[in-house]
Amino acid sequence: MEISGKIKEVREISSNWKKQGLSVALVPTMGYLHAGHISLIEKARKENDKVIVSIFVNPIQFGPNEDYEKYPRDMDHDAEACKNAGADLIFAPEPNEMYPSANLAHVNIDQLGDGLCGARRPGHFSGVCTVITKLFNIVSPDRAYFGQKDAQQLAIIKKMTGDLNFTTEIVPCRIVREADGLAMSSRNMYLSPEERSAAVILSKSLAMAKQMMEDKESDPERIKEAVINKIESEPLARIDYVEIVDAETLKQTEHINTPVLTAIAVYIGRTRLIDNFTFKGE
Amino acid sequence: MEISGKIKEVREISSNWKKQGLSVALVPTMGYLHAGHISLIEKARKENDKVIVSIFVNPIQFGPNEDYEKYPRDMDHDAEACKNAGADLIFAPEPNEMYPSANLAHVNIDQLGDGLCGARRPGHFSGVCTVITKLFNIVSPDRAYFGQKDAQQLAIIKKMTGDLNFTTEIVPCRIVREADGLAMSSRNMYLSPEERSAAVILSKSLAMAKQMMEDKESDPERIKEAVINKIESEPLARIDYVEIVDAETLKQTEHINTPVLTAIAVYIGRTRLIDNFTFKGE
Repeated sequence: MEISGKIKEVREISSNWKKQGLSVALVPTMGYLHAGHISLIEKARKENDKVIVSIFVNPIQFGPNEDYEKYPRDMDHDAEACKNAGADLIFAPEPNEMYPSANLAHVNIDQLGDGLCGARRPGHFSGVCTVITKLFNIVSPDRAYFGQKDAQQLAIIKKMTGDLNFTTEIVPCRIVREADGLAMSSRNMYLSPEERSAAVILSKSLAMAKQMMEDKESDPERIKEAVINKIESEPLARIDYVEIVDAETLKQTEHINTPVLTAIAVYIGRTRLIDNFTFKGE
Repeated sequence: MEISGKIKEVREISSNWKKQGLSVALVPTMGYLHAGHISLIEKARKENDKVIVSIFVNPIQFGPNEDYEKYPRDMDHDAEACKNAGADLIFAPEPNEMYPSANLAHVNIDQLGDGLCGARRPGHFSGVCTVITKLFNIVSPDRAYFGQKDAQQLAIIKKMTGDLNFTTEIVPCRIVREADGLAMSSRNMYLSPEERSAAVILSKSLAMAKQMMEDKESDPERIKEAVINKIESEPLARIDYVEIVDAETLKQTEHINTPVLTAIAVYIGRTRLIDNFTFKGE
Protein backbone atom coordinates (compact mmCIF):
# COMPACT_ATOMS: atom_id res chain seq x y z
CA MET A 1 0.00 0.00 0.00
CA GLU A 2 1.23 3.46 -0.94
CA ILE A 3 0.68 6.72 0.91
CA SER A 4 0.84 10.06 -0.86
CA GLY A 5 0.01 13.63 0.05
CA LYS A 6 0.45 14.97 -3.45
CA ILE A 7 -2.40 15.60 -5.86
CA LYS A 8 -0.23 15.17 -8.94
CA GLU A 9 1.10 11.82 -7.78
CA VAL A 10 -2.31 10.41 -6.83
CA ARG A 11 -3.78 11.61 -10.11
CA GLU A 12 -1.02 9.82 -12.02
CA ILE A 13 -1.35 6.58 -10.07
CA SER A 14 -5.12 6.48 -10.53
CA SER A 15 -4.89 7.50 -14.17
CA ASN A 16 -2.36 4.71 -14.83
CA TRP A 17 -4.62 2.16 -13.20
CA LYS A 18 -7.52 3.31 -15.34
CA LYS A 19 -5.38 3.14 -18.48
CA GLN A 20 -4.71 -0.50 -17.62
CA GLY A 21 -8.46 -1.07 -17.56
CA LEU A 22 -8.61 -1.45 -13.78
CA SER A 23 -11.62 -0.15 -11.85
CA VAL A 24 -10.83 2.39 -9.16
CA ALA A 25 -12.79 3.02 -5.95
CA LEU A 26 -12.57 6.06 -3.71
CA VAL A 27 -13.44 5.97 -0.02
CA PRO A 28 -13.41 9.61 1.14
CA THR A 29 -12.82 9.95 4.89
CA MET A 30 -11.61 12.44 7.48
CA GLY A 31 -9.49 9.71 9.06
CA TYR A 32 -9.53 8.38 12.63
CA LEU A 33 -10.96 5.30 11.03
CA HIS A 34 -13.42 3.07 12.86
CA ALA A 35 -15.33 -0.08 11.95
CA GLY A 36 -17.78 1.98 9.88
CA HIS A 37 -15.00 3.24 7.62
CA ILE A 38 -13.45 -0.20 7.46
CA SER A 39 -16.72 -1.64 6.20
CA LEU A 40 -16.66 0.93 3.36
CA ILE A 41 -13.08 0.00 2.45
CA GLU A 42 -13.87 -3.70 2.55
CA LYS A 43 -16.93 -3.26 0.35
CA ALA A 44 -14.87 -1.16 -2.08
CA ARG A 45 -12.19 -3.87 -2.01
CA LYS A 46 -14.69 -6.53 -3.05
CA GLU A 47 -16.19 -4.49 -5.87
CA ASN A 48 -13.11 -2.88 -7.50
CA ASP A 49 -9.60 -3.62 -8.71
CA LYS A 50 -8.02 -0.72 -6.84
CA VAL A 51 -9.07 1.10 -3.68
CA ILE A 52 -7.99 4.63 -2.76
CA VAL A 53 -8.80 5.93 0.72
CA SER A 54 -8.59 9.70 1.13
CA ILE A 55 -7.84 10.97 4.61
CA PHE A 56 -8.38 14.69 4.88
CA VAL A 57 -9.95 16.74 7.64
CA ASN A 58 -11.51 19.28 5.29
CA PRO A 59 -11.35 22.73 6.91
CA ILE A 60 -14.03 24.32 4.71
CA GLN A 61 -16.76 21.98 5.92
CA PHE A 62 -16.31 23.07 9.56
CA GLY A 63 -18.00 26.17 10.96
CA PRO A 64 -16.00 28.74 12.94
CA ASN A 65 -17.20 27.34 16.28
CA GLU A 66 -16.92 23.69 15.35
CA ASP A 67 -14.26 21.11 16.13
CA TYR A 68 -11.87 21.43 13.17
CA GLU A 69 -8.80 21.92 15.34
CA LYS A 70 -9.57 19.21 17.86
CA TYR A 71 -11.04 16.73 15.37
CA PRO A 72 -9.16 13.49 16.16
CA ARG A 73 -6.27 12.46 13.90
CA ASP A 74 -4.13 9.31 14.02
CA MET A 75 -2.32 8.62 10.77
CA ASP A 76 -0.34 5.61 12.03
CA HIS A 77 -3.48 3.82 13.13
CA ASP A 78 -5.29 4.80 9.92
CA ALA A 79 -2.48 3.53 7.68
CA GLU A 80 -2.48 0.19 9.50
CA ALA A 81 -6.27 -0.07 9.31
CA CYS A 82 -6.32 0.76 5.57
CA LYS A 83 -3.63 -1.79 4.87
CA ASN A 84 -5.47 -4.49 6.78
CA ALA A 85 -8.70 -3.68 4.98
CA GLY A 86 -6.99 -4.05 1.60
CA ALA A 87 -6.58 -0.45 0.42
CA ASP A 88 -4.03 0.14 -2.35
CA LEU A 89 -3.36 3.82 -1.78
CA ILE A 90 -3.97 6.43 0.90
CA PHE A 91 -4.30 10.02 -0.29
CA ALA A 92 -3.56 12.19 2.74
CA PRO A 93 -2.93 15.77 1.60
CA GLU A 94 -2.05 18.73 3.81
CA PRO A 95 -4.62 21.56 3.78
CA ASN A 96 -2.35 23.78 1.65
CA GLU A 97 -2.09 21.05 -0.97
CA MET A 98 -5.88 21.05 -1.33
CA TYR A 99 -6.30 24.82 -0.89
CA PRO A 100 -3.05 26.44 -2.09
CA SER A 101 -4.76 29.84 -2.48
CA ALA A 102 -8.08 31.27 -1.36
CA ASN A 103 -10.64 28.79 -2.66
CA LEU A 104 -13.12 30.97 -4.52
CA ALA A 105 -14.99 28.24 -6.38
CA HIS A 106 -17.60 26.36 -4.38
CA VAL A 107 -20.13 23.71 -5.20
CA ASN A 108 -23.46 24.42 -3.55
CA ILE A 109 -26.67 22.51 -3.35
CA ASP A 110 -30.17 23.98 -3.17
CA GLN A 111 -33.03 22.59 -1.10
CA LEU A 112 -31.40 19.30 -0.03
CA GLY A 113 -28.96 21.23 2.15
CA ASP A 114 -31.53 23.53 3.74
CA GLY A 115 -32.87 21.35 6.56
CA LEU A 116 -31.48 18.86 9.09
CA CYS A 117 -27.70 19.26 9.56
CA GLY A 118 -27.55 21.92 6.82
CA ALA A 119 -29.77 24.26 8.84
CA ARG A 120 -27.53 23.86 11.92
CA ARG A 121 -24.21 23.95 10.07
CA PRO A 122 -24.27 26.79 7.52
CA GLY A 123 -21.73 26.21 4.75
CA HIS A 124 -21.11 22.62 5.83
CA PHE A 125 -22.54 20.93 2.75
CA SER A 126 -20.99 23.46 0.41
CA GLY A 127 -17.65 22.48 1.95
CA VAL A 128 -18.48 18.80 1.53
CA CYS A 129 -19.64 19.16 -2.10
CA THR A 130 -16.57 21.24 -2.95
CA VAL A 131 -14.05 18.80 -1.50
CA ILE A 132 -15.81 15.80 -3.05
CA THR A 133 -15.75 17.55 -6.45
CA LYS A 134 -12.03 18.13 -5.99
CA LEU A 135 -11.43 14.50 -4.96
CA PHE A 136 -13.48 13.21 -7.89
CA ASN A 137 -11.45 15.39 -10.26
CA ILE A 138 -8.17 14.17 -8.76
CA VAL A 139 -8.98 10.45 -8.60
CA SER A 140 -11.70 10.03 -11.30
CA PRO A 141 -13.09 7.05 -9.38
CA ASP A 142 -15.47 4.57 -10.98
CA ARG A 143 -17.21 4.21 -7.62
CA ALA A 144 -17.21 6.19 -4.39
CA TYR A 145 -18.36 4.79 -1.04
CA PHE A 146 -20.35 6.76 1.53
CA GLY A 147 -21.89 5.69 4.82
CA GLN A 148 -25.62 5.99 5.38
CA LYS A 149 -24.97 7.47 8.82
CA ASP A 150 -24.50 10.78 7.02
CA ALA A 151 -27.85 10.41 5.30
CA GLN A 152 -28.22 14.01 4.21
CA GLN A 153 -24.66 14.07 2.89
CA LEU A 154 -25.36 10.91 0.90
CA ALA A 155 -28.55 12.34 -0.64
CA ILE A 156 -26.71 15.56 -1.51
CA ILE A 157 -23.72 13.85 -3.07
CA LYS A 158 -25.94 11.57 -5.14
CA LYS A 159 -27.82 14.58 -6.50
CA MET A 160 -24.63 16.60 -7.04
CA THR A 161 -22.99 13.76 -8.93
CA GLY A 162 -25.95 13.49 -11.28
CA ASP A 163 -26.50 17.22 -11.71
CA LEU A 164 -22.85 17.89 -12.55
CA ASN A 165 -22.51 14.80 -14.81
CA PHE A 166 -19.79 13.06 -12.86
CA THR A 167 -19.42 9.46 -13.99
CA THR A 168 -18.66 8.18 -10.50
CA GLU A 169 -21.20 5.73 -9.11
CA ILE A 170 -22.19 6.62 -5.54
CA VAL A 171 -22.39 3.48 -3.39
CA PRO A 172 -24.30 3.82 -0.10
CA CYS A 173 -23.12 1.64 2.79
CA ARG A 174 -25.00 0.50 5.87
CA ILE A 175 -24.47 2.06 9.29
CA VAL A 176 -22.12 0.03 11.46
CA ARG A 177 -23.03 0.00 15.15
CA GLU A 178 -21.44 -0.83 18.48
CA ALA A 179 -22.83 -3.84 20.33
CA ASP A 180 -25.31 -1.63 22.24
CA GLY A 181 -26.55 0.08 19.06
CA LEU A 182 -24.51 3.32 19.05
CA ALA A 183 -23.61 4.26 15.48
CA MET A 184 -19.86 4.26 14.88
CA SER A 185 -18.40 7.77 14.68
CA SER A 186 -14.99 9.32 15.07
CA ARG A 187 -16.62 11.79 17.42
CA ASN A 188 -17.58 8.98 19.86
CA MET A 189 -14.04 9.32 21.23
CA TYR A 190 -15.02 12.68 22.73
CA LEU A 191 -17.48 10.94 25.07
CA SER A 192 -16.71 10.32 28.76
CA PRO A 193 -17.66 6.82 30.01
CA GLU A 194 -20.88 8.23 31.47
CA GLU A 195 -21.70 10.02 28.22
CA ARG A 196 -20.87 6.90 26.24
CA SER A 197 -23.58 5.02 28.16
CA ALA A 198 -26.04 7.86 27.69
CA ALA A 199 -25.36 8.01 23.92
CA VAL A 200 -27.29 4.79 23.36
CA ILE A 201 -30.43 6.92 23.61
CA LEU A 202 -30.01 7.88 19.92
CA SER A 203 -30.31 4.38 18.52
CA LYS A 204 -32.88 3.39 21.15
CA SER A 205 -35.20 6.24 20.25
CA LEU A 206 -34.84 5.43 16.54
CA ALA A 207 -35.61 1.75 17.21
CA MET A 208 -38.78 2.89 18.92
CA ALA A 209 -39.71 5.11 15.96
CA LYS A 210 -39.15 2.23 13.58
CA GLN A 211 -41.36 0.00 15.68
CA MET A 212 -44.12 2.64 15.61
CA MET A 213 -43.92 2.78 11.81
CA GLU A 214 -44.05 -0.98 11.57
CA ASP A 215 -47.10 -0.83 13.83
CA LYS A 216 -48.74 1.40 11.16
CA GLU A 217 -48.43 4.74 12.90
CA SER A 218 -48.58 7.09 9.91
CA ASP A 219 -48.51 10.49 11.61
CA PRO A 220 -44.92 11.77 11.69
CA GLU A 221 -45.79 14.29 14.41
CA ARG A 222 -46.78 11.54 16.84
CA ILE A 223 -43.60 9.64 16.14
CA LYS A 224 -41.44 12.74 16.50
CA GLU A 225 -43.11 13.53 19.81
CA ALA A 226 -42.41 10.03 21.11
CA VAL A 227 -38.78 10.23 19.97
CA ILE A 228 -38.35 13.64 21.60
CA ASN A 229 -39.81 12.36 24.87
CA LYS A 230 -37.56 9.33 24.78
CA ILE A 231 -34.41 11.36 24.19
CA GLU A 232 -35.38 13.90 26.85
CA SER A 233 -35.64 11.06 29.36
CA GLU A 234 -31.83 10.94 29.20
CA PRO A 235 -30.44 13.77 31.38
CA LEU A 236 -27.12 14.07 29.47
CA ALA A 237 -28.90 14.42 26.11
CA ARG A 238 -29.92 17.68 24.46
CA ILE A 239 -31.82 17.55 21.18
CA ASP A 240 -30.48 19.47 18.18
CA TYR A 241 -33.17 18.17 15.83
CA VAL A 242 -35.59 15.29 15.30
CA GLU A 243 -36.96 15.18 11.75
CA ILE A 244 -38.97 12.84 9.57
CA VAL A 245 -38.57 13.73 5.89
CA ASP A 246 -39.03 12.30 2.42
CA ALA A 247 -35.98 10.09 1.88
CA GLU A 248 -35.16 11.59 -1.50
CA THR A 249 -36.22 15.24 -1.40
CA LEU A 250 -35.49 15.61 2.35
CA LYS A 251 -38.67 17.69 2.58
CA GLN A 252 -41.02 17.49 5.56
CA THR A 253 -43.55 14.74 5.15
CA GLU A 254 -47.07 14.92 6.56
CA HIS A 255 -47.99 11.30 6.17
CA ILE A 256 -45.79 8.23 6.21
CA ASN A 257 -46.52 6.51 2.92
CA THR A 258 -43.30 6.83 0.93
CA PRO A 259 -39.74 5.98 1.93
CA VAL A 260 -39.06 8.33 4.83
CA LEU A 261 -35.85 9.25 6.56
CA THR A 262 -35.96 9.71 10.30
CA ALA A 263 -32.87 11.69 11.24
CA ILE A 264 -31.76 12.99 14.60
CA ALA A 265 -28.92 15.09 15.96
CA VAL A 266 -28.37 15.06 19.70
CA TYR A 267 -25.76 16.61 21.94
CA ILE A 268 -24.43 14.23 24.56
CA GLY A 269 -22.62 16.62 26.83
CA ARG A 270 -20.77 18.83 24.36
CA THR A 271 -20.52 16.19 21.64
CA ARG A 272 -22.97 16.36 18.76
CA LEU A 273 -23.95 12.92 17.44
CA ILE A 274 -26.22 11.99 14.54
CA ASP A 275 -28.13 8.84 13.63
CA ASN A 276 -30.95 7.89 11.29
CA PHE A 277 -32.90 5.12 9.59
CA THR A 278 -34.92 4.93 6.40
CA PHE A 279 -38.34 3.29 6.49
CA LYS A 280 -39.39 2.02 3.10
CA GLY A 281 -42.97 1.09 4.02
CA GLU A 282 -44.39 -2.09 2.53
CA MET B 1 -17.92 15.63 -38.61
CA GLU B 2 -20.48 14.12 -36.25
CA ILE B 3 -23.34 15.90 -34.49
CA SER B 4 -24.85 14.53 -31.29
CA GLY B 5 -27.31 15.80 -28.73
CA LYS B 6 -26.72 12.95 -26.30
CA ILE B 7 -24.43 13.17 -23.29
CA LYS B 8 -23.78 9.45 -23.22
CA GLU B 9 -22.76 9.33 -26.86
CA VAL B 10 -20.45 12.35 -26.67
CA ARG B 11 -18.86 10.99 -23.51
CA GLU B 12 -18.16 7.70 -25.27
CA ILE B 13 -16.73 9.29 -28.38
CA SER B 14 -14.42 11.56 -26.38
CA SER B 15 -13.44 8.76 -24.03
CA ASN B 16 -12.55 6.52 -26.98
CA TRP B 17 -10.40 9.24 -28.51
CA LYS B 18 -8.57 9.67 -25.23
CA LYS B 19 -8.05 5.92 -24.90
CA GLN B 20 -6.34 6.06 -28.30
CA GLY B 21 -3.98 8.67 -26.88
CA LEU B 22 -5.51 11.53 -28.87
CA SER B 23 -5.74 15.00 -27.36
CA VAL B 24 -9.25 16.43 -27.18
CA ALA B 25 -10.22 20.11 -27.27
CA LEU B 26 -13.54 21.61 -26.24
CA VAL B 27 -14.83 24.90 -27.63
CA PRO B 28 -17.93 25.75 -25.56
CA THR B 29 -20.33 28.07 -27.39
CA MET B 30 -23.95 29.15 -27.40
CA GLY B 31 -24.03 28.81 -31.19
CA TYR B 32 -24.84 31.39 -33.84
CA LEU B 33 -21.17 31.20 -34.64
CA HIS B 34 -19.25 34.19 -35.91
CA ALA B 35 -15.62 34.81 -36.83
CA GLY B 36 -14.70 35.02 -33.14
CA HIS B 37 -15.93 31.47 -32.50
CA ILE B 38 -14.32 30.26 -35.71
CA SER B 39 -10.96 31.59 -34.53
CA LEU B 40 -11.35 29.50 -31.34
CA ILE B 41 -12.16 26.38 -33.35
CA GLU B 42 -9.25 26.95 -35.71
CA LYS B 43 -6.84 27.46 -32.83
CA ALA B 44 -8.17 24.31 -31.16
CA ARG B 45 -7.79 22.48 -34.49
CA LYS B 46 -4.10 23.41 -34.69
CA GLU B 47 -3.30 22.43 -31.12
CA ASN B 48 -5.23 19.17 -30.69
CA ASP B 49 -6.00 15.87 -32.39
CA LYS B 50 -9.76 16.17 -31.95
CA VAL B 51 -12.02 19.19 -31.58
CA ILE B 52 -15.47 19.15 -30.00
CA VAL B 53 -17.66 22.25 -30.31
CA SER B 54 -20.55 22.43 -27.86
CA ILE B 55 -23.55 24.47 -28.97
CA PHE B 56 -25.93 25.05 -26.10
CA VAL B 57 -27.88 28.17 -25.16
CA ASN B 58 -27.61 27.57 -21.43
CA PRO B 59 -30.86 28.67 -19.76
CA ILE B 60 -29.42 28.92 -16.23
CA GLN B 61 -26.98 31.68 -17.17
CA PHE B 62 -29.77 34.00 -18.33
CA GLY B 63 -31.68 36.22 -15.91
CA PRO B 64 -35.48 36.30 -15.96
CA ASN B 65 -35.55 39.54 -17.98
CA GLU B 66 -32.74 38.61 -20.33
CA ASP B 67 -32.79 37.35 -23.91
CA TYR B 68 -32.82 33.54 -23.44
CA GLU B 69 -35.88 33.02 -25.63
CA LYS B 70 -34.86 35.34 -28.42
CA TYR B 71 -31.13 34.54 -28.32
CA PRO B 72 -30.31 33.78 -31.98
CA ARG B 73 -30.02 30.15 -33.07
CA ASP B 74 -29.06 28.71 -36.48
CA MET B 75 -27.94 25.11 -36.33
CA ASP B 76 -27.57 24.63 -40.09
CA HIS B 77 -25.22 27.57 -40.39
CA ASP B 78 -23.32 26.49 -37.25
CA ALA B 79 -22.85 22.92 -38.50
CA GLU B 80 -21.46 24.20 -41.78
CA ALA B 81 -19.17 26.67 -40.01
CA CYS B 82 -17.85 24.01 -37.61
CA LYS B 83 -17.20 21.62 -40.45
CA ASN B 84 -15.31 24.25 -42.44
CA ALA B 85 -13.25 25.17 -39.37
CA GLY B 86 -12.24 21.55 -38.90
CA ALA B 87 -14.33 20.44 -35.90
CA ASP B 88 -14.70 16.68 -35.41
CA LEU B 89 -17.87 16.68 -33.33
CA ILE B 90 -20.67 19.06 -32.41
CA PHE B 91 -22.36 18.46 -29.07
CA ALA B 92 -25.75 20.18 -29.28
CA PRO B 93 -27.97 18.95 -26.44
CA GLU B 94 -31.54 19.99 -25.78
CA PRO B 95 -32.11 21.76 -22.44
CA ASN B 96 -33.79 18.69 -20.93
CA GLU B 97 -30.76 16.56 -21.79
CA MET B 98 -28.55 18.91 -19.76
CA TYR B 99 -31.13 19.57 -17.02
CA PRO B 100 -33.39 16.49 -16.86
CA SER B 101 -34.62 17.42 -13.38
CA ALA B 102 -34.38 20.51 -11.22
CA ASN B 103 -30.68 21.31 -11.16
CA LEU B 104 -29.93 21.69 -7.45
CA ALA B 105 -26.12 21.59 -7.62
CA HIS B 106 -24.43 24.80 -8.66
CA VAL B 107 -20.85 25.91 -8.95
CA ASN B 108 -20.37 29.42 -7.58
CA ILE B 109 -17.44 31.75 -7.48
CA ASP B 110 -16.67 34.29 -4.77
CA GLN B 111 -15.21 37.75 -5.37
CA LEU B 112 -14.37 37.36 -9.08
CA GLY B 113 -18.07 37.29 -9.91
CA ASP B 114 -19.06 40.24 -7.72
CA GLY B 115 -18.25 43.18 -10.01
CA LEU B 116 -18.53 44.00 -13.72
CA CYS B 117 -21.07 41.77 -15.49
CA GLY B 118 -21.60 39.72 -12.33
CA ALA B 119 -23.03 42.74 -10.50
CA ARG B 120 -25.48 43.40 -13.36
CA ARG B 121 -26.39 39.80 -14.06
CA PRO B 122 -27.03 38.03 -10.72
CA GLY B 123 -26.65 34.27 -11.09
CA HIS B 124 -25.04 34.58 -14.52
CA PHE B 125 -21.59 33.32 -13.57
CA SER B 126 -23.00 30.58 -11.39
CA GLY B 127 -24.88 29.40 -14.48
CA VAL B 128 -21.70 29.61 -16.54
CA CYS B 129 -19.54 27.78 -13.98
CA THR B 130 -22.18 25.08 -13.58
CA VAL B 131 -22.56 24.37 -17.29
CA ILE B 132 -18.79 24.43 -17.86
CA THR B 133 -18.35 21.94 -15.00
CA LYS B 134 -20.95 19.71 -16.64
CA LEU B 135 -19.29 20.01 -20.06
CA PHE B 136 -15.86 19.27 -18.60
CA ASN B 137 -17.29 16.19 -16.87
CA ILE B 138 -18.93 15.01 -20.08
CA VAL B 139 -16.03 15.63 -22.48
CA SER B 140 -12.95 15.54 -20.18
CA PRO B 141 -11.13 17.86 -22.57
CA ASP B 142 -7.36 18.31 -22.44
CA ARG B 143 -7.84 21.95 -23.44
CA ALA B 144 -10.80 24.31 -23.54
CA TYR B 145 -10.89 27.52 -25.59
CA PHE B 146 -12.45 30.76 -24.40
CA GLY B 147 -12.53 34.20 -25.99
CA GLN B 148 -11.03 37.18 -24.20
CA LYS B 149 -14.09 39.23 -25.09
CA ASP B 150 -15.72 37.64 -22.04
CA ALA B 151 -12.80 38.68 -19.84
CA GLN B 152 -14.54 38.18 -16.51
CA GLN B 153 -15.83 34.78 -17.60
CA LEU B 154 -12.30 33.79 -18.60
CA ALA B 155 -10.82 34.87 -15.26
CA ILE B 156 -13.57 33.03 -13.40
CA ILE B 157 -13.24 29.82 -15.38
CA LYS B 158 -9.47 29.80 -14.96
CA LYS B 159 -9.86 30.14 -11.19
CA MET B 160 -12.67 27.59 -11.03
CA THR B 161 -10.66 25.05 -13.01
CA GLY B 162 -7.74 25.37 -10.61
CA ASP B 163 -9.79 25.48 -7.43
CA LEU B 164 -11.77 22.38 -8.34
CA ASN B 165 -8.73 20.47 -9.69
CA PHE B 166 -9.95 20.00 -13.22
CA THR B 167 -7.10 18.89 -15.48
CA THR B 168 -8.35 20.88 -18.46
CA GLU B 169 -6.02 23.63 -19.65
CA ILE B 170 -7.86 26.90 -20.24
CA VAL B 171 -6.67 28.57 -23.44
CA PRO B 172 -7.52 32.28 -23.82
CA CYS B 173 -8.09 33.53 -27.37
CA ARG B 174 -7.83 37.06 -28.76
CA ILE B 175 -10.88 39.17 -29.49
CA VAL B 176 -11.84 39.11 -33.16
CA ARG B 177 -13.17 42.41 -34.49
CA GLU B 178 -15.10 43.71 -37.48
CA ALA B 179 -13.20 46.00 -39.88
CA ASP B 180 -14.34 49.09 -37.96
CA GLY B 181 -13.29 47.68 -34.59
CA LEU B 182 -16.58 46.31 -33.21
CA ALA B 183 -15.92 43.10 -31.26
CA MET B 184 -17.62 40.08 -32.83
CA SER B 185 -20.71 38.98 -30.90
CA SER B 186 -23.79 36.94 -31.64
CA ARG B 187 -25.77 39.81 -30.16
CA ASN B 188 -24.55 42.21 -32.88
CA MET B 189 -27.33 40.77 -35.05
CA TYR B 190 -29.87 42.56 -32.82
CA LEU B 191 -28.53 45.94 -34.00
CA SER B 192 -30.34 48.09 -36.58
CA PRO B 193 -28.06 49.61 -39.27
CA GLU B 194 -28.05 52.89 -37.34
CA GLU B 195 -27.20 51.10 -34.07
CA ARG B 196 -24.54 49.07 -35.82
CA SER B 197 -22.75 52.29 -36.77
CA ALA B 198 -23.14 53.67 -33.25
CA ALA B 199 -21.74 50.47 -31.69
CA VAL B 200 -18.23 51.33 -32.82
CA ILE B 201 -18.13 53.70 -29.85
CA LEU B 202 -17.18 50.75 -27.60
CA SER B 203 -13.94 49.90 -29.36
CA LYS B 204 -13.18 53.55 -30.06
CA SER B 205 -13.45 54.53 -26.41
CA LEU B 206 -11.24 51.58 -25.42
CA ALA B 207 -8.66 52.53 -28.04
CA MET B 208 -8.58 55.97 -26.48
CA ALA B 209 -8.13 54.50 -22.98
CA LYS B 210 -5.28 52.34 -24.24
CA GLN B 211 -3.61 55.37 -25.78
CA MET B 212 -3.90 57.23 -22.46
CA MET B 213 -2.22 54.34 -20.64
CA GLU B 214 0.54 54.20 -23.22
CA ASP B 215 0.95 57.95 -22.69
CA LYS B 216 1.62 57.16 -18.99
CA GLU B 217 -1.68 58.26 -17.54
CA SER B 218 -1.73 56.23 -14.32
CA ASP B 219 -4.94 57.45 -12.68
CA PRO B 220 -7.77 55.03 -13.54
CA GLU B 221 -10.40 57.63 -12.56
CA ARG B 222 -9.19 60.06 -15.24
CA ILE B 223 -9.24 57.34 -17.85
CA LYS B 224 -12.70 56.16 -16.82
CA GLU B 225 -13.98 59.72 -17.00
CA ALA B 226 -12.61 60.13 -20.52
CA VAL B 227 -14.13 56.81 -21.60
CA ILE B 228 -17.49 57.75 -20.11
CA ASN B 229 -17.46 61.10 -21.87
CA LYS B 230 -16.54 59.47 -25.14
CA ILE B 231 -19.33 56.89 -24.92
CA GLU B 232 -21.86 59.53 -23.85
CA SER B 233 -21.03 61.50 -27.00
CA GLU B 234 -22.92 58.78 -28.89
CA PRO B 235 -26.67 59.44 -28.54
CA LEU B 236 -27.69 55.77 -29.03
CA ALA B 237 -25.31 54.55 -26.31
CA ARG B 238 -26.19 54.09 -22.64
CA ILE B 239 -23.44 53.01 -20.25
CA ASP B 240 -23.99 49.94 -18.09
CA TYR B 241 -20.50 50.06 -16.61
CA VAL B 242 -16.98 51.29 -17.26
CA GLU B 243 -14.40 49.66 -14.98
CA ILE B 244 -10.64 49.44 -14.66
CA VAL B 245 -9.64 46.51 -12.45
CA ASP B 246 -6.69 44.28 -11.63
CA ALA B 247 -6.56 41.77 -14.48
CA GLU B 248 -6.33 38.76 -12.16
CA THR B 249 -8.32 39.62 -9.02
CA LEU B 250 -10.83 41.86 -10.90
CA LYS B 251 -10.67 44.23 -7.94
CA GLN B 252 -10.74 48.01 -8.36
CA THR B 253 -7.29 49.40 -8.93
CA GLU B 254 -6.23 52.85 -7.75
CA HIS B 255 -3.08 53.16 -9.77
CA ILE B 256 -2.18 51.63 -13.11
CA ASN B 257 1.02 49.73 -12.45
CA THR B 258 0.07 46.07 -12.80
CA PRO B 259 -1.77 44.34 -15.64
CA VAL B 260 -5.17 45.99 -15.64
CA LEU B 261 -8.37 45.06 -17.37
CA THR B 262 -10.49 47.87 -18.76
CA ALA B 263 -13.97 46.46 -19.29
CA ILE B 264 -17.12 48.17 -20.48
CA ALA B 265 -20.74 47.21 -21.00
CA VAL B 266 -22.87 49.54 -23.07
CA TYR B 267 -26.44 49.39 -24.29
CA ILE B 268 -26.80 50.37 -27.92
CA GLY B 269 -30.53 50.81 -28.16
CA ARG B 270 -31.82 47.76 -26.30
CA THR B 271 -28.80 45.57 -27.04
CA ARG B 272 -26.17 45.18 -24.33
CA LEU B 273 -22.64 44.84 -25.73
CA ILE B 274 -19.35 44.30 -23.91
CA ASP B 275 -15.74 44.91 -24.82
CA ASN B 276 -12.40 45.13 -23.02
CA PHE B 277 -8.64 45.20 -23.27
CA THR B 278 -5.84 44.26 -20.91
CA PHE B 279 -2.94 46.65 -20.47
CA LYS B 280 0.18 44.88 -19.26
CA GLY B 281 2.27 48.02 -18.68
CA GLU B 282 5.95 47.82 -19.49
